[in-house]
Amino acid sequence: MGKVVTLGEIMLRFSTDSGIRIAQTEAFTAHYGGGEANVAVSLANYGHQVAFASKVPDNALGEAVRKHLNRYGVDTKHLLKGGPRLGSYYLEAGVGERAASVIYDRAGSSFAVVETAEWNLEELFSGCDIFHISGITPALSAAWRDLTLVLIKAAKQAGCLISFDVNYRGKLWSREEAGKTIRTILPYVDYCSAGKLDAQHFLEVTAYDGDSEEEEASYYYREMQKKYPNISVFYSTKRKVHSASANELIGTLWSDGHYYESQCHLIDPIIDRVGGGDAFAGGVLHGLLNKADHQKVINFATAASALKHTVHGDCNQFSQEEVESFLALGSGKIIR
Amino acid sequence: MGKVVTLGEIMLRFSTDSGIRIAQTEAFTAHYGGGEANVAVSLANYGHQVAFASKVPDNALGEAVRKHLNRYGVDTKHLLKGGPRLGSYYLEAGVGERAASVIYDRAGSSFAVVETAEWNLEELFSGCDIFHISGITPALSAAWRDLTLVLIKAAKQAGCLISFDVNYRGKLWSREEAGKTIRTILPYVDYCSAGKLDAQHFLEVTAYDGDSEEEEASYYYREMQKKYPNISVFYSTKRKVHSASANELIGTLWSDGHYYESQCHLIDPIIDRVGGGDAFAGGVLHGLLNKADHQKVINFATAASALKHTVHGDCNQFSQEEVESFLALGSGKIIR
Amino acid sequence: MGKVVTLGEIMLRFSTDSGIRIAQTEAFTAHYGGGEANVAVSLANYGHQVAFASKVPDNALGEAVRKHLNRYGVDTKHLLKGGPRLGSYYLEAGVGERAASVIYDRAGSSFAVVETAEWNLEELFSGCDIFHISGITPALSAAWRDLTLVLIKAAKQAGCLISFDVNYRGKLWSREEAGKTIRTILPYVDYCSAGKLDAQHFLEVTAYDGDSEEEEASYYYREMQKKYPNISVFYSTKRKVHSASANELIGTLWSDGHYYESQCHLIDPIIDRVGGGDAFAGGVLHGLLNKADHQKVINFATAASALKHTVHGDCNQFSQEEVESFLALGSGKIIR
Amino acid sequence: MGKVVTLGEIMLRFSTDSGIRIAQTEAFTAHYGGGEANVAVSLANYGHQVAFASKVPDNALGEAVRKHLNRYGVDTKHLLKGGPRLGSYYLEAGVGERAASVIYDRAGSSFAVVETAEWNLEELFSGCDIFHISGITPALSAAWRDLTLVLIKAAKQAGCLISFDVNYRGKLWSREEAGKTIRTILPYVDYCSAGKLDAQHFLEVTAYDGDSEEEEASYYYREMQKKYPNISVFYSTKRKVHSASANELIGTLWSDGHYYESQCHLIDPIIDRVGGGDAFAGGVLHGLLNKADHQKVINFATAASALKHTVHGDCNQFSQEEVESFLALGSGKIIR
Amino acid sequence: MGKVVTLGEIMLRFSTDSGIRIAQTEAFTAHYGGGEANVAVSLANYGHQVAFASKVPDNALGEAVRKHLNRYGVDTKHLLKGGPRLGSYYLEAGVGERAASVIYDRAGSSFAVVETAEWNLEELFSGCDIFHISGITPALSAAWRDLTLVLIKAAKQAGCLISFDVNYRGKLWSREEAGKTIRTILPYVDYCSAGKLDAQHFLEVTAYDGDSEEEEASYYYREMQKKYPNISVFYSTKRKVHSASANELIGTLWSDGHYYESQCHLIDPIIDRVGGGDAFAGGVLHGLLNKADHQKVINFATAASALKHTVHGDCNQFSQEEVESFLALGSGKIIR
Amino acid sequence: MGKVVTLGEIMLRFSTDSGIRIAQTEAFTAHYGGGEANVAVSLANYGHQVAFASKVPDNALGEAVRKHLNRYGVDTKHLLKGGPRLGSYYLEAGVGERAASVIYDRAGSSFAVVETAEWNLEELFSGCDIFHISGITPALSAAWRDLTLVLIKAAKQAGCLISFDVNYRGKLWSREEAGKTIRTILPYVDYCSAGKLDAQHFLEVTAYDGDSEEEEASYYYREMQKKYPNISVFYSTKRKVHSASANELIGTLWSDGHYYESQCHLIDPIIDRVGGGDAFAGGVLHGLLNKADHQKVINFATAASALKHTVHGDCNQFSQEEVESFLALGSGKIIR
Repeated sequence: MGKVVTLGEIMLRFSTDSGIRIAQTEAFTAHYGGGEANVAVSLANYGHQVAFASKVPDNALGEAVRKHLNRYGVDTKHLLKGGPRLGSYYLEAGVGERAASVIYDRAGSSFAVVETAEWNLEELFSGCDIFHISGITPALSAAWRDLTLVLIKAAKQAGCLISFDVNYRGKLWSREEAGKTIRTILPYVDYCSAGKLDAQHFLEVTAYDGDSEEEEASYYYREMQKKYPNISVFYSTKRKVHSASANELIGTLWSDGHYYESQCHLIDPIIDRVGGGDAFAGGVLHGLLNKADHQKVINFATAASALKHTVHGDCNQFSQEEVESFLALGSGKIIR
Repeated sequence: MGKVVTLGEIMLRFSTDSGIRIAQTEAFTAHYGGGEANVAVSLANYGHQVAFASKVPDNALGEAVRKHLNRYGVDTKHLLKGGPRLGSYYLEAGVGERAASVIYDRAGSSFAVVETAEWNLEELFSGCDIFHISGITPALSAAWRDLTLVLIKAAKQAGCLISFDVNYRGKLWSREEAGKTIRTILPYVDYCSAGKLDAQHFLEVTAYDGDSEEEEASYYYREMQKKYPNISVFYSTKRKVHSASANELIGTLWSDGHYYESQCHLIDPIIDRVGGGDAFAGGVLHGLLNKADHQKVINFATAASALKHTVHGDCNQFSQEEVESFLALGSGKIIR
Repeated sequence: MGKVVTLGEIMLRFSTDSGIRIAQTEAFTAHYGGGEANVAVSLANYGHQVAFASKVPDNALGEAVRKHLNRYGVDTKHLLKGGPRLGSYYLEAGVGERAASVIYDRAGSSFAVVETAEWNLEELFSGCDIFHISGITPALSAAWRDLTLVLIKAAKQAGCLISFDVNYRGKLWSREEAGKTIRTILPYVDYCSAGKLDAQHFLEVTAYDGDSEEEEASYYYREMQKKYPNISVFYSTKRKVHSASANELIGTLWSDGHYYESQCHLIDPIIDRVGGGDAFAGGVLHGLLNKADHQKVINFATAASALKHTVHGDCNQFSQEEVESFLALGSGKIIR
Repeated sequence: MGKVVTLGEIMLRFSTDSGIRIAQTEAFTAHYGGGEANVAVSLANYGHQVAFASKVPDNALGEAVRKHLNRYGVDTKHLLKGGPRLGSYYLEAGVGERAASVIYDRAGSSFAVVETAEWNLEELFSGCDIFHISGITPALSAAWRDLTLVLIKAAKQAGCLISFDVNYRGKLWSREEAGKTIRTILPYVDYCSAGKLDAQHFLEVTAYDGDSEEEEASYYYREMQKKYPNISVFYSTKRKVHSASANELIGTLWSDGHYYESQCHLIDPIIDRVGGGDAFAGGVLHGLLNKADHQKVINFATAASALKHTVHGDCNQFSQEEVESFLALGSGKIIR
Repeated sequence: MGKVVTLGEIMLRFSTDSGIRIAQTEAFTAHYGGGEANVAVSLANYGHQVAFASKVPDNALGEAVRKHLNRYGVDTKHLLKGGPRLGSYYLEAGVGERAASVIYDRAGSSFAVVETAEWNLEELFSGCDIFHISGITPALSAAWRDLTLVLIKAAKQAGCLISFDVNYRGKLWSREEAGKTIRTILPYVDYCSAGKLDAQHFLEVTAYDGDSEEEEASYYYREMQKKYPNISVFYSTKRKVHSASANELIGTLWSDGHYYESQCHLIDPIIDRVGGGDAFAGGVLHGLLNKADHQKVINFATAASALKHTVHGDCNQFSQEEVESFLALGSGKIIR
Repeated sequence: MGKVVTLGEIMLRFSTDSGIRIAQTEAFTAHYGGGEANVAVSLANYGHQVAFASKVPDNALGEAVRKHLNRYGVDTKHLLKGGPRLGSYYLEAGVGERAASVIYDRAGSSFAVVETAEWNLEELFSGCDIFHISGITPALSAAWRDLTLVLIKAAKQAGCLISFDVNYRGKLWSREEAGKTIRTILPYVDYCSAGKLDAQHFLEVTAYDGDSEEEEASYYYREMQKKYPNISVFYSTKRKVHSASANELIGTLWSDGHYYESQCHLIDPIIDRVGGGDAFAGGVLHGLLNKADHQKVINFATAASALKHTVHGDCNQFSQEEVESFLALGSGKIIR
């Protein structure tokens, strides 16, 4: 099993029940999550040794974050306590044609206001196989744009492979800012989650002008590969959104000049879409750590993501055996 | 923005959770609503100045009604307090093939036993653009058959346009009684919600004998228009009931000899169907008050109705901006 | 109306809410049920005089079982109190592609450790039309394999028709053990619920090698009939599992050399699948008790089963009138 | 064990959670209960054969009433179905200094509009030891004033002892009306629940003018006894209301010229006070049926009432063994 | 009835259920409230015309605030929309000996970052009898210290009486800062809520050195009065904290050189203490607006505060009639 | 900070809501706990390095146990997976005079059927300061009587201090059996939780015949000390049970011939009493590990136990700082 460090912000999500609007609700369900934290939980579920580094306030909410991560076996030695507040957001899940709606309240969080590398980087990256970070972190502040690179370089130096999820959030920065920063990061990256829009907007890949859906995905991966030959694996999902309650999901992966695609999962109904992408990334990293063949990697990762959509909360709750048995069984029968 | 008065009964709905029968439940969710009250809420959401006139008992339930309406910005100056009780009904929502089932307990309510126009009509209708009332009200008693006409005439005299929703309820009166009464009302009406069955049963329109589904809707509107040239706008929905959990909905509108139809909304899953028609009527009246073009009116109204089906409770909870953004976006994606 | 006795184990089911895993839940919903108990409730709902014989511990859980059965009008005179514990199981319902998952904790229950016929058999079967028992009971212990036969013979002698539901559970015994026991039981059986897999695994019927789906069902029934001419009615369902949330269900019945099939029910969404088969068996026995024609029997039973899938809990909550009105209406409209 | 018939109205109670007002609640807990129904449940819990006669609407609410009674082993053969509606009331439980508040919505119920003895009286009272009825029933209508007497006489003739609980409700009738009717009933009564205020207001007993609290209770019983020598047992409670959350309760009983008093129970906190008096009456009748000595009767009945205050819902949920073990143990320790 | 304006911050409170800690909870109950908003709701409940001025973000949470206030009949014309976020706090209610614990997350809220008087002051104060504001507002920022005085002066000029609640919060500013600001405000104040500690810490009153509890309260009022002869009414509560679940509460008031004290309320159990002081202030202002005699004012206000402690949420839910009937009845009996 | 190992059974507790009986409930709250597990959580909360050794089934319930312990920072390396089932029990909490009632369903659990020391004892006890075990474990089986001694000796040999909680459970073994076993254990024990009844029943101490409550506790400790001079610390609580909802609690400790007693805590209301004793033991061990003076040890431990009674669930949720601040503050005020 591998040793992994992920670093990023973790927030408190306030969700209303299905069919209840934020403006009318009398109660919120509380979930703790964030891209890198969710990836950490997935990998811990699969038996890897995972640490999540972040910063949370030194109060009961920070303590709740620590308990949440510990519950799933994630090491919290590098979860710093301090700073002004825990970032949060409010989610009103979509139903059928109606899209989800989100109110972010993350400005000024303990993590966002970090200005220097407060973690003991030597200890953090020592013996670590993969360091995973996402494009949300450099989007938080100018300081974080610098700091992200500092962290990545330190990890690289310590011998980690760098896993980067582009994860563009338009509410945090402009495409221009994002592109500039991302292009300084990618030369250090080994595994990269980036899709067709990321290729166009941030990696300066020209739009595909053919008419074959099959070739389109390969095209973008190939072009991104050309620009960043240092990246050994690219991966992404193709999602067909029938409605907020029903999606089709296909995972795709590119490595060594080959394109791999999972079977298509019809996810209907969707219980909770948040964290679906993180479960996918977690599945890919798991496969790569285990040196599984690439078709198996993408099958596993996509199945893991499909499963995540069927449970409440940000984080995947399935073990390696459960994901594999789901892949083998592939239906909705009672097992008894 | 316009000034609107709606008048009718408002009831306490007791709902069981999905998958729980009335005969086994240990708890009921409480919602307050009624056709005209729901229209009032929709219009208040869109920024109009709306008053709802009714009568509720002078106890905590009457107070709950007042609070419910005030919450959505509906004026309750004309909500009288007194009389024996608040009408109620029990709803066991349908699931899939299984239809919803309803037990009414509305007889003898404070509103139903009203015998004379207890409201200050002059004040009620002063400066009002539209007076909206439905066919449920005259169905409540012989006194209400007379009173409904009294109210409509007073509103007309005060310069209001009259909006009437046929809304036939077979448990309250026979088709014959209904038809007789409705035909005394329609000559005063400006905007009328009436569908194909209403045309046949109450407006004495001969059944369509062609085989074009497209022409059928136009046919009924044209025939109704012939009989009541005073009515400037007719509107209705075409609903394809796949199951209690999935419906298709198309809005239709007739004005100036033209037929307008919205796009089709697939509502799957349905969270709560009650009030779907009222949200549609509210959307139509909003468009007419704003003098929007008729295609936009019907698009907006049908979208508003589709949205209503995705939230619990009788009343639409969406602002004009939200309905319009839903129309523009038209899918179930997370916005972040 | 008929008089029926069913006998078997009744357990406490712990269910998590949809989208919540057993390993993360903070609460369980409690339902009491078991194959024969559920059939008893269905038949009591339809107005038959039904007793359920079993054994439960002499504590509040045993008392809860008694209250549960009494609530639905099932006679509990033959529900013995004593023994070590109430069997239980944990159910995490499936969602979409994800299958349900079950943890059984039934070993050593008060019923399972019964060694001799503790019930007053003379009183139990006196005047009874049908004695219903399932293949789960002999699977519980060696003693129960003998005891099941003792009970069946006593019932037969008392003039009861014997109804047997094969209901194979692989977690309790092997196919070999099951087959051996079942084949000692079938010569006493009058009504038998057994499908295509039961025919192959336990009744030693050769697999169908044709390619007509229509003929396949008939084939198995015909072959089973050949082996057990004493059985006057065979019945079973054909279930197409689209996902854990959506199934298609067709009921089939064989009698007097004729094959009957119900219409197909699309069950979407499934609220609770547990007890769906028992509702079907209950519907068949109801039709047979009422000497309805066989097409009506299978239509009613399949409708009853489809309805069961739309409510929480093991037992069907619909009266004969409700099932028939569902059959007549066949859609998901609000009735008001 | 004895055979008992009770007859009266049963209603649907809507309760809010503690600390939530009716005018603000979004949900109600549903309980079914009524004085005579609650007594029936208590006696069935203690192993007596009890039938409850009433009338409820022929809908899911009537069915819920039947299921509720059956659950506790009460015979519902004489629970008629039909009429307009189920009476209901809304309860906002008191907290500390704040009293409970109740909204009745019971007018026009299926039971209240009964005009003639619709039950088969011969069958109803055949073999019955005690017929229990309360002063709420004659308060419902003029017809019920007559009918109550008809029922009591029929029961008397059939050999039943008559148990009557004065249970005056000021919202239903005046003291004058009540007194007149009650005085026509009492000559037929054997067991009577009546307290100090009942003695003064309805039995025309002069107010006690001594200053000994001990003698006061005896005084009223003695005077009532003088007026109605046919009544063999009088009983009542003395309740000291510290607050809506904490009460002291003492049971008192008079028979054969002797006064009996239970120990004092401090009930703190009170979970649900509704039905506390019915549990007391049920306990007294149980003791009288079992010919227990009078001190034991009053101890048991008061303990049963105290226990009732510790559970939600109208009806006592404790067996004879549980009440006795509570009496013996007398504290709040964990038993393990 | 009077016309009142209150101005201040309104926040979203997240509460856990009783006995559940913030660090372990999976859900929060949502309440909206703030000192001045709660006073506004109380006064609206009593029939006064009340506007609440504040600023909330232009999103669903801001909309929820508006709906909350409208529900209770508070005018929201002066509730501005805009700015970064809604302030919030997390409350873990105390139980018995264990104190409540609070995490504030109010920094940077839309209200706190206001720098200039964004409201139309002329319109805001026109015709208004009382302007109520608390010491929390100037504690929010340096800008707010100035702005508070600006608002008070404008209100004064427009003819309003100024009501000021000292309401010191040590987490927001030091005693020195608070004292300095408060002493610039008090010369404009007419009604002032200030207790013994306020007198010492902010009004520079020397500590009482006598030993009569009766005289102590008078002493502080007299001394404060000496320093601010412009203040016509001082009021405060004496609270004896037995535990987080049980308090004794006495209201005190000083006017025209006379000291008034309410009876003592034992509040046990406390359902929700938040807003208890605001309900008291609301009750005092109501009495003053109605020119009730001072003993009645303090009795009413203290009863209103005691009642508030028995319901969930920040705001008092009782009408004038309910408070008065509570005063008259003074116990916890069921009224029926 | 110290290093501690605790070993014992951990069970799934099913609790009903307050005021709901087991025989009527439709839902159970799930908590995981057991004496030694709860002590482990307390010590982990205080910052010690704690491992809990046990055995749970290899299914989702075993996984839930692991997650529960990890959440609180307890090391689960020695939590074995396997065996038949997880022990469970049902708890109906007491209310006021009514005692709690418990149904155990723990027979045949994965832990109870352990026959040999399946843990790697060398690794388990390496570097460990204290090994804590209770008298429940040897009560589970004859094998466990031997095994308990084996474990204690191995721990002793590895240099651990032995902490033993007598914790007699009459449902598991007789006083005779218990006494015999406990007396073989005590010669190895360093810290012992044993009270007055334990002294009499198992340590063969003659009953105190004086009349000073103060001297009684000392007497028993002194006599126990005489018999087991190897035990350096004895501790216990004196609990005055006013009712199931209100207790008084005093902690007592004996060491070096001195008797220490904490202040008295009035716990009212009690939220959840389960685990109160374990929180006390955890507090004592914490103090002993930190070599705090004995008065501080007993003050801290009793405060920790009092706090535990105010939260749901078996395990204490308070940090060292929170317990100390509770001791310092000592009341129920809001801190803000």
